[in-house]
Amino acid sequence: MTKPVRVALLGCGTVGAEVVRLLHDQAADLTARIGAPIELAGIAVRRLGRDRGALPVGPAVFTTDPLGLVKRDDVDVVVEVVGGIEPARTWLVEALRAGKSVVTANKALLAEDGASLHDAAAEGGADLYYEAAVAGAIPLLRPLRESLHGDSVNRVTGIVNGTTNYILSAMDATGAGFAEALEQATELGYAEADPTADVEGFDAAAKGAILASLAFHTRVGAADVHREGITEVTAADVASAKAMGCTIKLLCIASRGPDAAGVDSVSVRVHPAMIPRTHPLAGVGDAFNAVFVEARAAGQLMFYGRGAGGAPTASAVLGDLVAVARNRLAGVRAASESAYAALPIRPMGEAVTRYHISLDVADRAGVLAAVAGVFAGHGVSIATVRQSGRGEDAELVVVTHRASDAALAATVAELRDLEHVRAIVSVLRVEGEP
Amino acid sequence: MTKPVRVALLGCGTVGAEVVRLLHDQAADLTARIGAPIELAGIAVRRLGRDRGALPVGPAVFTTDPLGLVKRDDVDVVVEVVGGIEPARTWLVEALRAGKSVVTANKALLAEDGASLHDAAAEGGADLYYEAAVAGAIPLLRPLRESLHGDSVNRVTGIVNGTTNYILSAMDATGAGFAEALEQATELGYAEADPTADVEGFDAAAKGAILASLAFHTRVGAADVHREGITEVTAADVASAKAMGCTIKLLCIASRGPDAAGVDSVSVRVHPAMIPRTHPLAGVGDAFNAVFVEARAAGQLMFYGRGAGGAPTASAVLGDLVAVARNRLAGVRAASESAYAALPIRPMGEAVTRYHISLDVADRAGVLAAVAGVFAGHGVSIATVRQSGRGEDAELVVVTHRASDAALAATVAELRDLEHVRAIVSVLRVEGEP
Repeated sequence: MTKPVRVALLGCGTVGAEVVRLLHDQAADLTARIGAPIELAGIAVRRLGRDRGALPVGPAVFTTDPLGLVKRDDVDVVVEVVGGIEPARTWLVEALRAGKSVVTANKALLAEDGASLHDAAAEGGADLYYEAAVAGAIPLLRPLRESLHGDSVNRVTGIVNGTTNYILSAMDATGAGFAEALEQATELGYAEADPTADVEGFDAAAKGAILASLAFHTRVGAADVHREGITEVTAADVASAKAMGCTIKLLCIASRGPDAAGVDSVSVRVHPAMIPRTHPLAGVGDAFNAVFVEARAAGQLMFYGRGAGGAPTASAVLGDLVAVARNRLAGVRAASESAYAALPIRPMGEAVTRYHISLDVADRAGVLAAVAGVFAGHGVSIATVRQSGRGEDAELVVVTHRASDAALAATVAELRDLEHVRAIVSVLRVEGEP
Repeated sequence: MTKPVRVALLGCGTVGAEVVRLLHDQAADLTARIGAPIELAGIAVRRLGRDRGALPVGPAVFTTDPLGLVKRDDVDVVVEVVGGIEPARTWLVEALRAGKSVVTANKALLAEDGASLHDAAAEGGADLYYEAAVAGAIPLLRPLRESLHGDSVNRVTGIVNGTTNYILSAMDATGAGFAEALEQATELGYAEADPTADVEGFDAAAKGAILASLAFHTRVGAADVHREGITEVTAADVASAKAMGCTIKLLCIASRGPDAAGVDSVSVRVHPAMIPRTHPLAGVGDAFNAVFVEARAAGQLMFYGRGAGGAPTASAVLGDLVAVARNRLAGVRAASESAYAALPIRPMGEAVTRYHISLDVADRAGVLAAVAGVFAGHGVSIATVRQSGRGEDAELVVVTHRASDAALAATVAELRDLEHVRAIVSVLRVEGEP
């Protein structure tokens, strides 16, 4: 029998426990697929006594010393499902430098400091796989890192956060406001007690950085991503979207194109946006994730599936584990980070899209002319205007043609100070073909 | 500069010409991604003089001797986009045995005799990649061959033929009959002059065999696939489907499960079926392809994109070409065919699904009771019955609960001979959750 591949598992929460179960239940298949059995060398946890349900491992396999486990000579591969920047970075850099392959689901670390990990992997000649870090079980890493490597990706548009998609889908279906939908999501376990990372878009921004890095062969970090969450999205916004034949989704949009000076560059942004109900992403409901890719030759592709949860995430981890184990047996290393293009990041002000602006104005003659004049003054062309009088006040909804974020921001700032404009009720981007 | 990777291209039709153009236009990117330039050693064509548009290669690169080209010492990789069983098999076996990597889009050959190619690849220690053979640009090979290798795939349901999907989508949208929709598809270039391979399901069956082989780690050939085309689908069937909240698609369904004797086995079938409009595959329109995968841990995944056309297919070919070129430079070979499970093929009679049966009957008392008795006699449970009288005749539409194909076939045979049953108008399977 071939020598087993020995794995150190860091973390044993929902995902870790599922990895342990799948390793046990599918042992025969994994051995056949890899050509050698997988053995758990150890599982590092914070507390030994915690109830982890029925796991098919003895108590001796657990340790509270993750770094000690990583450094053990009998460990070939390190699987990390703890999350967070430190101490995970220290463990993984240690492992990679020592030539141990790493499989991680740690999107925050990859987006914050992927460079440290990639550099350590190059130094140690080790594999770094992270399919589970973006969109859970949906295979994206290999399609972007391999299948599309003979093509040129123009744009990646994703729904990559299940919590916010659940909330926005519920708001769309029931007409509920954000607070109510969040409460429901929390009760059903779709949102964490502190939902900040999800609803403020931090999680989606981290995934956007990873996707953009892969798609554009350029190192993109979380700090390069323009980020807006969904906490300001109201029931009225959702109703406005419906009236336009749209739905609101938290999108992560990574695109490649010329900047204002004509230099090839990358833009990554996360924000809520209206998209037409006919767009393939519009039908992605509940906590599902989907990533829409536009490439020069391949055209439009979409990848859809469960973005989170113990079993789907564990499936992605195990797929990576099979790959790195095979590579070790073959004595080879996968293609390393591809960052040769090193494209500059385009500032958010240069991002071009359409906008839906809702204004609360006094119902007087000349107001529309004044408002339209402000748009024109900043070169923002208006596609449609809808005015509904309400006695003293009127609601004015303006949808623009494509304009830069900077021009729109300047327009909104000036509108705010305009006489008879009582309030800018909302500003939402409109994505997808009109 | 690293020594170039030299490629022999067999075939220069729509796909081949696009490969040539992309190799030229993206040369710098491909070199950076591979670590060495790609060079075209030669292009084998049937006729030298044919107009191939403006291609960025000189006339000296063309040859009418494909086997001679494959055998040349300066050829590292062979790309085949000719199609058909012979002489493609001879060329590719020759290449693989000589240790030359092969990238092919030849689904017919892979489904008919994939074993010869895989065996030759093992013998020569060469790579065999064929992403373009199934669903064009949609990355499926790597997700099934790698990403899901730590998981267990239960079922693959695909729309894998663009021509028939275009025809059925048109029938659904306009109420046209099959002949009319086919004519339109031919005019628009979606169907070939001889549409047999598409409309009779041969193309989908070949792809189903390839998908099942990958998903279930078992050699599945075209002969193992139950195949029915769409030529019998009528405008009335489409209307009946609509009345049930369904649409009709040509599905390729590969599933793993116990056979009648409880033995783990594989079933692959291609046939038109009604699916609920809420199913993710129902929204796949025009000539698009999509493959829906259900895995134990990953849950539901869907892959969507263009299944055919020069550029999308060329994108898949180039992705494979980058991979095999990298492997050659690294002196390694990708994981070879995984057929260790070697599951038996379950007979079609044991396939279990629901059915929609439309009968033309005499409008007499007792007919419904007699018909219901025949279903009961074969253990086929009825879910709904709808009878619409038309004077002398009545139309009887029966939708069953899940039953085996054998039981349904026996039921239909007996119904055909029943007094007062004038005709079995149609029998369609109903897939997806009720």
